[in-house]
Amino acid sequence: MLPTRIERTHLELPAQVQTAEQLSPLVGKSANWIVSRSGVAERRLWDGPVEQLGANAVRGLGLDEPPDVLINCSLTPRQLIPDTGAFVAKELGWAGLPVYSIHSTCLSFMVGLQHASALIAAGLHERIVLVAAERGSICRDFTAPESAVLIGDGAAAALVTRGEGSGLRDFRMRTYPEFAHLAQLEGCGVHRHPNDPETGHSHNLFQMSGPRLYRHGVKRMTQMLNEILGENGLDKGDVSLVVPHQASGPGVEAVRRYGFSSEQVVDVVGKYGNCIAASIPMALAHADAEGRIQRGDTVLLMGTGAGLSVATALLTW
Amino acid sequence: MLPTRIERTHLELPAQVQTAEQLSPLVGKSANWIVSRSGVAERRLWDGPVEQLGANAVRGLGLDEPPDVLINCSLTPRQLIPDTGAFVAKELGWAGLPVYSIHSTCLSFMVGLQHASALIAAGLHERIVLVAAERGSICRDFTAPESAVLIGDGAAAALVTRGEGSGLRDFRMRTYPEFAHLAQLEGCGVHRHPNDPETGHSHNLFQMSGPRLYRHGVKRMTQMLNEILGENGLDKGDVSLVVPHQASGPGVEAVRRYGFSSEQVVDVVGKYGNCIAASIPMALAHADAEGRIQRGDTVLLMGTGAGLSVATALLTW
Repeated sequence: MLPTRIERTHLELPAQVQTAEQLSPLVGKSANWIVSRSGVAERRLWDGPVEQLGANAVRGLGLDEPPDVLINCSLTPRQLIPDTGAFVAKELGWAGLPVYSIHSTCLSFMVGLQHASALIAAGLHERIVLVAAERGSICRDFTAPESAVLIGDGAAAALVTRGEGSGLRDFRMRTYPEFAHLAQLEGCGVHRHPNDPETGHSHNLFQMSGPRLYRHGVKRMTQMLNEILGENGLDKGDVSLVVPHQASGPGVEAVRRYGFSSEQVVDVVGKYGNCIAASIPMALAHADAEGRIQRGDTVLLMGTGAGLSVATALLTW
Repeated sequence: MLPTRIERTHLELPAQVQTAEQLSPLVGKSANWIVSRSGVAERRLWDGPVEQLGANAVRGLGLDEPPDVLINCSLTPRQLIPDTGAFVAKELGWAGLPVYSIHSTCLSFMVGLQHASALIAAGLHERIVLVAAERGSICRDFTAPESAVLIGDGAAAALVTRGEGSGLRDFRMRTYPEFAHLAQLEGCGVHRHPNDPETGHSHNLFQMSGPRLYRHGVKRMTQMLNEILGENGLDKGDVSLVVPHQASGPGVEAVRRYGFSSEQVVDVVGKYGNCIAASIPMALAHADAEGRIQRGDTVLLMGTGAGLSVATALLTW
């Protein structure tokens, strides 16, 4: 077990709410269709700079001084160069510490947590802030309602420290790139460069083959959950809190169908939608703010992301 | 010292060469102007998928089996979702291992090396492949010759393992975001989204305030070099090999002016240009292929990157 602890969390919600009723005319589907298919009744929207949203999440941690490192674990960048972490640090007035980004789409925070734990275990740092801030709403393709209605904006931050009795017990991740095309945004890089006249509007928006993604994701995740529980000698009931990526209503429902109870599973997808890399830390911070986690609890983070990747992290809180 | 070793390196050069003479009419400057200002006599160009370039670099390592993790440490992404690492893995036919990206512009490989070392030191992994593949040529703004003539394409990969007697002795990085605007590409994110009609052609190209970047970078780097050498009890002459980011001819010259000899400093900027995150591992792999590094040698990686960030890494090879 790596001797690291999530010391504090903060959930940062943009004030603006967009309900299924408000979204309905934009996608040409009824509010009932939206909620029944996606499970998302409302989501938040942020139309300001994404780094402000991230900085607000970090401010919410209430730190007395900057950490040793700031790692941006987000998908939607402010721009290509420099990485978004530098802009979050600029908003915070922080200078002189290492700042950079880890990117694994929806699993960025989980990878960041594993790396932060390794940096602390290796004795390189003591206090690391992870931040995930997403403004995915700008990438919604309203002509593709199945995916567009899932997405929301939001942010969360976590302070990771060395902590007696707490730790990262296990972390697993697997990437299956034969399914890379099932969830993608083809633009914003060299493949469909914005200045290429053949790059179309839809290339710069999120595209998803939901049912196939769901099927392959659930299959790989079930296998990984069986392994991580079995190899750590845990029954499903031994896990105090399960924090899944809030991919969709059916995605979170699949976690309960696997055999975790509603009391165990954090489910905020109906209120916040799929906030990409911010979803897992937002759900964690939501549960933390509600007092649903005590020191010593067994907490399971889990998710699937574009790639296709699946990951699980077992923590002693 | 973290007990990690760069076991193998590989330099991957695209076949196509673009000389200063060939570039001259594109930027409206003479070949002599290009070479004297930038120090770049020629650069390679790659017009294929960036993930193929990255996969070729990894293939060059000649591995018998996939590593425990593949980390893409590049700036120019194939596309926004999924991260480029998944596409490199797809090219390689690798599945089931963790794949993701670390992004710190020109310092991505150095951050990746520190993180890989921490993952190995913490006992999480034994064999990690880092790959940096850049196709920055597509982001050249020919109306801004000062920066456009610097950029080249290329890739490199490294296998990092646990290694007796080898190690990462020291790693330092500092980010000064008040200088974030000195080197940027404003597009390809939510700030200047490709579908925003106000996003212009030049927002999707690399912009740089070279002299200011150079001045601030050299100042911060000099300070950091004095520290890392002093605190490790090293004189300049104790370093066997210095591998600087190949930012520009003057940038590499500044490393010699600091007090390292031409024999110590790897200088390939004249042949390959500034290949962004690939420059440091390309220079390292170039020197490795030339037999300039022996096990036990003291090797110093160093660089400045957009952010503005500066970093140094001291290795026992």
